[in-house]
Amino acid sequence: MKKKELVVGVFGFGCVGQGLYEVLEKTPGFKTTIKKICVKDRNKRRSLDDSMYTFEKDDILNDPEINVVIELIDDSEAAFEIVSQALNNKKAVVSANKKMIAENFQALLELQRINEVPLLYEAACCASIPIIRNLEEYYDNDLLESIEGIVNGSTNYILTKTDSDNLTYSEALQLAQSLGYAESNPSLDTEGYDAKFKLLILIAHAFGILVKPTDIFNIGINLIGDLEIQYAKEKGYKIKLVANAYKTSEGKVACYVLPKFVRAESNLYSVKDAYNGIITKTSFADTQFFLGKGAGAHPTASAVLSDLSALSYNYQYEYKKILQNENLELDTDCVIDVMFRHSSKESEEVLPYFHSIDEIYKNQEHGYITGTINLQNLKNYKDQFPDSGSFIQLTN
Amino acid sequence: MKKKELVVGVFGFGCVGQGLYEVLEKTPGFKTTIKKICVKDRNKRRSLDDSMYTFEKDDILNDPEINVVIELIDDSEAAFEIVSQALNNKKAVVSANKKMIAENFQALLELQRINEVPLLYEAACCASIPIIRNLEEYYDNDLLESIEGIVNGSTNYILTKTDSDNLTYSEALQLAQSLGYAESNPSLDTEGYDAKFKLLILIAHAFGILVKPTDIFNIGINLIGDLEIQYAKEKGYKIKLVANAYKTSEGKVACYVLPKFVRAESNLYSVKDAYNGIITKTSFADTQFFLGKGAGAHPTASAVLSDLSALSYNYQYEYKKILQNENLELDTDCVIDVMFRHSSKESEEVLPYFHSIDEIYKNQEHGYITGTINLQNLKNYKDQFPDSGSFIQLTN
Repeated sequence: MKKKELVVGVFGFGCVGQGLYEVLEKTPGFKTTIKKICVKDRNKRRSLDDSMYTFEKDDILNDPEINVVIELIDDSEAAFEIVSQALNNKKAVVSANKKMIAENFQALLELQRINEVPLLYEAACCASIPIIRNLEEYYDNDLLESIEGIVNGSTNYILTKTDSDNLTYSEALQLAQSLGYAESNPSLDTEGYDAKFKLLILIAHAFGILVKPTDIFNIGINLIGDLEIQYAKEKGYKIKLVANAYKTSEGKVACYVLPKFVRAESNLYSVKDAYNGIITKTSFADTQFFLGKGAGAHPTASAVLSDLSALSYNYQYEYKKILQNENLELDTDCVIDVMFRHSSKESEEVLPYFHSIDEIYKNQEHGYITGTINLQNLKNYKDQFPDSGSFIQLTN
Repeated sequence: MKKKELVVGVFGFGCVGQGLYEVLEKTPGFKTTIKKICVKDRNKRRSLDDSMYTFEKDDILNDPEINVVIELIDDSEAAFEIVSQALNNKKAVVSANKKMIAENFQALLELQRINEVPLLYEAACCASIPIIRNLEEYYDNDLLESIEGIVNGSTNYILTKTDSDNLTYSEALQLAQSLGYAESNPSLDTEGYDAKFKLLILIAHAFGILVKPTDIFNIGINLIGDLEIQYAKEKGYKIKLVANAYKTSEGKVACYVLPKFVRAESNLYSVKDAYNGIITKTSFADTQFFLGKGAGAHPTASAVLSDLSALSYNYQYEYKKILQNENLELDTDCVIDVMFRHSSKESEEVLPYFHSIDEIYKNQEHGYITGTINLQNLKNYKDQFPDSGSFIQLTN
């Protein structure tokens, strides 16, 4: 089999970009030339020879010799512009930008189709875990029942540190940022948006459903307080930020991102630090579990490299499930078991939103309610009272 | 994308064959016709209409309408004959027969190449874990450092039951067989041959190395005794049968199947019952871990179904790493940390085989030696004294 020679232009030379450069340097068997790196800041000191850099994106996008563009910048709007233009110029693209991909999924499908060039983005979901490739290639039948996982390394790192090292939330967040695990805008991580973007990409490859980010409900870890941390410890649970998508009995797909109490029996329980873990469940083979580093320069760069390698063999996502067009829809009406931790009058306000109440606990300071809530009602409540209390999904 | 229509002939209708039939029945979206099933025993009562069965293999192999042969019989020599003839008749083949594939790997490569038809065998390694597909498609660069895993569901089931349910070895073995987890010839499982066959297939896809079964050293669980079980419990370890392949500092690949003491920190520690688990280690992304059911009718059938689905999209293994031909060789000279448990005079006999001795313990009844041993010396000792004592790899 003949490998295609890749001449690469890179956009962005931060953590991941530099990681990729190092990984490529240390991969003698993999012949790929980085011809040019486009960066923004003209005054920053750079590690490579000046001739490697450009500040003009067209130096890459219009270079006929460059056949692959790697997009590793932070700004998702600028990223979409670059990726679109690259695809329109018939260049294959590798991107790790989940926000950009999630926000423009349909448009990016169209651009790939029209231009007949591939866009690969394994690094955008769970970095080193080849989950997109597996959903795309392996679970390509209608036996897949659910995917559930820890898909955000930064929040998992924070939760691990607050749990096992007793750091405060902000200490743990700072540590995560200093290690390059957190995005430049931490609220994307901590409020569950990053996990949501990944879930959107995963459900496209898992179930063939195309949705917008606003279609998926997300709650992050930023409102988690002492009471629920204590509750988890007493019950022997860990709190994890879990992205979840499953087929309902009505043949729809329910999906959301929520913090969740996880039992010791779950594979997710022992997913530590910046690791990610995904459980897939199929009708006849029970569960499979995939674990790997979900953040960090080298794990992400390593996934980018695997995409590059795939491109050299002319790999592309077939989007089989989207093309099969089984018309699966999102279920916004599913009912979820949750705990709601509140501080004062919130307990009164929230009660009518619940579908059923199981326990009510209250002391002078705060309290909690457990029960079931309809996903739409949960959304409505959060729209009304965005900063009140915290919801955590109960373990199943 | 156009799906190819599959008309299937099946050889063998045991556990997995029937499981496959059920899975297909319950997979409405997956249009595959089983046209004929070839079985051996003319007197056995069968679940389907008589017209579905044949006793003549040529009814399938010479049927021009049948384009896929699924081989699910026990006898590896008969299986090879069937698979060879099917490939020569330009039929795609799916097989779950690790013994047959391992023993004829090179010949099967050749048959695929000459006839330009694919042979897929994801079910042959770790049933529901898509490990071959991942090694083939994802880890396709020279960053892969090692694969290590529990690849035999039957022995893992036995080890789990002797550990947690305090069953005796033979009780646990019987239970495993009654659940369909063990092969008809249990020594293939318990003596580590089944794991070895899988390891042979895995190293072909992981490192591009083609070897014969006799090139890989294997020890099973059949000689494990009370002392080492007790030792494991005291230290907080579990004994697992582990298949291992890793690049050595000399640029070769060491590989073997050995029982191993596994620490609680290892992902393999919590692989229970008939589950399999594989840890892959890459230079820049640390470890990834894959977990899933490694035995049983439905998990195996499910993997066969995924291969069928892949065939409908014209998927085939590219064997990239074999074609890249990096000339990686097996390292038979590596040094392994082991415990040798002996009963009497064996301690004297084994000493000269060790590379270095760490601990020696002895009581009236039995004793153990820990230290390092060269793989070739270990082989030599086992050739000389096949049934004496038991070797277990020490945790690293």
